[in-house]
Amino acid sequence: MQLPSSLLENAVAQFAKLPGVGKKTALRLVLHLLKQDVDDVQHFGETIARMRRDIKFCQRCCNVSDGDICSICANSQRNPRLICVVENIRDVIAVETTQQYNGTYHVLGGVISPLDGIGPDQLNIESLVQRIAREETEELLFALSPNIQGDTTIYYIQKKIAHLPCRITTIARGIAFGGELEYADEMTLARSIANRLPVQQYVK
Amino acid sequence: MQLPSSLLENAVAQFAKLPGVGKKTALRLVLHLLKQDVDDVQHFGETIARMRRDIKFCQRCCNVSDGDICSICANSQRNPRLICVVENIRDVIAVETTQQYNGTYHVLGGVISPLDGIGPDQLNIESLVQRIAREETEELLFALSPNIQGDTTIYYIQKKIAHLPCRITTIARGIAFGGELEYADEMTLARSIANRLPVQQYVK
Repeated sequence: MQLPSSLLENAVAQFAKLPGVGKKTALRLVLHLLKQDVDDVQHFGETIARMRRDIKFCQRCCNVSDGDICSICANSQRNPRLICVVENIRDVIAVETTQQYNGTYHVLGGVISPLDGIGPDQLNIESLVQRIAREETEELLFALSPNIQGDTTIYYIQKKIAHLPCRITTIARGIAFGGELEYADEMTLARSIANRLPVQQYVK
Repeated sequence: MQLPSSLLENAVAQFAKLPGVGKKTALRLVLHLLKQDVDDVQHFGETIARMRRDIKFCQRCCNVSDGDICSICANSQRNPRLICVVENIRDVIAVETTQQYNGTYHVLGGVISPLDGIGPDQLNIESLVQRIAREETEELLFALSPNIQGDTTIYYIQKKIAHLPCRITTIARGIAFGGELEYADEMTLARSIANRLPVQQYVK
């Protein structure tokens, strides 16, 4: 695809670097921006650049933040003794969307995955261990994806804080709401039988 | 979806304005950019803004251009007496991709569509008429989408240049290559029967 302008070509190349955006989609987005006001597009570019330049990571929980401490950590209505351990920012947003969680977070920045070259040192695990000791955390709730990497990470952190008086829990794994039994994989079904709940607890 | 940072929120809102990009996709794109170098994201923003600010439209054919005259019009290898009339820049790129066309273009910027409030005055029609007279154009090839709006636009322009000695043609309409007869609509099939070709011409 030969474009009639190098300015257009460069803009398309930038968009095409984004995940899931091919060259045709990139062209569609650029031609859309070409129809907008110059000031609006200037604002678009500046907003993106400023976001990357000025965004901070919360010194306590490693979540993205506008200041040194994120709005969740700064919220005095939240239980500081309960920490939910998540892989990334998207998971924070997913848990927040449920409106069922009132504690704080700790964003690991990934999970232990030797095949991808990610060991404990690349993750925010040391800061978590220090934080649990310092803040006298009562409960650590793991909300990691249920796979080998997630389980390895839980196991590793659990060992690291075994000496601390902190209760360790994980989000329940089982058949998803609306899911069909016959399509569940064996592992999920086996675990959900092993961890069966009293019906009173289920319907409450 | 509540985001933990207003910088993030603003960047997501900007991406979510793009066509076909919802809030979830926008967040995915922004979190991708968050992992890139500050300089790269700065460059991304600047490239987009510069594209909109500095891009020009060719004074002759209204195509996008880096200078006053686009690279196609400036190319002396091309036939300046043959003008292909298209709706927008994307159509220029589509025709160029075929590598079968060696004339110049005229980008209308749309088609006549009274229902959408688009009349001849909002399109680059007057400049086309003047150009045909000035450049002694030999052939005007319409490459507009085959629908009511496209046909209306062809009819309107045809009337406007009836006094000029310019041949007027349109790209062939018929069954698409690889298309199946039984799925073709009546209009297309009827037209392709009315405009049937000698087999010699078809296979040449």
